[in-house]
Amino acid sequence: MARMAFSGEEEPLGGYGVAKVLDSRKPDFKEGDLVWGVTGWEEFSLITAPQVLFKFQHNDFPLSYYTGILVSSPKKGDRVFISAAAGAVGQLVGQFAKLMGCYVLGGAGSKEKVDLLKNKLGFDEAFNYKEEHNLDAALKRWFPEGIDIYFENVGGKKMLDAVLLNMRVFGRIAACGMISQYNLDQPEGVCTLMSIVYKRFHFEGFSAPHYYHLYHKFLDIVLPYIREGKIAYIEDIVEGLEKGPEAVMGLFKGRNVGKQMVVVAHE
Amino acid sequence: MARMAFSGEEEPLGGYGVAKVLDSRKPDFKEGDLVWGVTGWEEFSLITAPQVLFKFQHNDFPLSYYTGILVSSPKKGDRVFISAAAGAVGQLVGQFAKLMGCYVLGGAGSKEKVDLLKNKLGFDEAFNYKEEHNLDAALKRWFPEGIDIYFENVGGKKMLDAVLLNMRVFGRIAACGMISQYNLDQPEGVCTLMSIVYKRFHFEGFSAPHYYHLYHKFLDIVLPYIREGKIAYIEDIVEGLEKGPEAVMGLFKGRNVGKQMVVVAHE
Repeated sequence: MARMAFSGEEEPLGGYGVAKVLDSRKPDFKEGDLVWGVTGWEEFSLITAPQVLFKFQHNDFPLSYYTGILVSSPKKGDRVFISAAAGAVGQLVGQFAKLMGCYVLGGAGSKEKVDLLKNKLGFDEAFNYKEEHNLDAALKRWFPEGIDIYFENVGGKKMLDAVLLNMRVFGRIAACGMISQYNLDQPEGVCTLMSIVYKRFHFEGFSAPHYYHLYHKFLDIVLPYIREGKIAYIEDIVEGLEKGPEAVMGLFKGRNVGKQMVVVAHE
Repeated sequence: MARMAFSGEEEPLGGYGVAKVLDSRKPDFKEGDLVWGVTGWEEFSLITAPQVLFKFQHNDFPLSYYTGILVSSPKKGDRVFISAAAGAVGQLVGQFAKLMGCYVLGGAGSKEKVDLLKNKLGFDEAFNYKEEHNLDAALKRWFPEGIDIYFENVGGKKMLDAVLLNMRVFGRIAACGMISQYNLDQPEGVCTLMSIVYKRFHFEGFSAPHYYHLYHKFLDIVLPYIREGKIAYIEDIVEGLEKGPEAVMGLFKGRNVGKQMVVVAHE
């Protein structure tokens, strides 16, 4: 946990985190409050824009549960494919989809992650994309009638060329991120976009902050699932701020298993 | 106009057209009826699936008006970009958008088409994409705050790489077609799809038949505009079925100005 004070000065380099308030000149926050949201990559932060921070309401759950949960709304019977499925977001999206009665396939990059998806997180199927030479053929095996929902975390030619060809008519793609592309000088070219015309599907980007106003509604649905143990959450924890850069770079190599956490301080 | 009979045998090679019924064993159609929809590339057609045909209701308009009209629903104040704007579909979409109070820019491939868009069809601006070396920079000039709606007729790297970078947050792309890509052995790679995550826009394919149930509602809106001369429609007419193949190939070279029509018979 980082520690922070509220003032009117500059913002730190941002990142999602949880923190304890040490001092505050803002009426909504007081010393000792626990908050989550955009905090700094530093041990002590001076926060000037507290609208990106939320106070904890439910202290009976591990703090880090609050940092990775996103909205997704599949329908019963939909056939769903999730890429980067063993990451911070994918693991939850897959479990939500299962709770809503979907068939869920997860893609990940190691045997360990595939085992987790199938045996701990309750996905119907999972596969190691590094072992599939022909993703198009693989997706046709799992989705002979096409993909109703693709939850996009990966991007790039290999993944999207195959997925777009296998979307079902009137399917839906929720684009959360494209981690394979962020560090390339030139993003890869995707050649199968014509499929959006033939299959008339819907491809839409979103970002979590736009849905913050629904967060309390979301908690009403999700907290009971967490209490009943119907949702598992896997974290990959490293100790010490000095491990931060390596942990961040590991995300782009797929080294993390579950949500990558950096512990700045235990207090 | 082609001529057709209704029976229970094989379908001809399809294409959109208008025709007169010569004989029918289906109760909804009788000799002498005028119809539009999927007809054959032939002088006489035997139709087995009449659900793709519609009888004319308004004989006071040129028959060919019925073959190119599509639905689009922009809002007042939206800034709209239409590619292949001087084609069968683009010219109408642009005029509908203008009637709804939008700013409309049209892209086309010749000076003649650009003049038509600006001087006859009432677009706010139009440009010849063949004269723009940097489409990204050109779009930034016309849409300094981004594109609210892109009506996609063209596809391919040159157009989409630039458009996707210039979409506004929460913008919308209606993908009608991607004519630049249909005849390539390998479709071009589009490198700027990541923009869908950053700009959270909506990209959706559609096809007209899915909206046929709204056609009568659409006519209620559009027929008055046509009667009052508020909508112009440009056709590129060739005479004789033997000119059909050349006319079709001309579409892919952008040779047609307006809706390409092939007159099979005047009766």
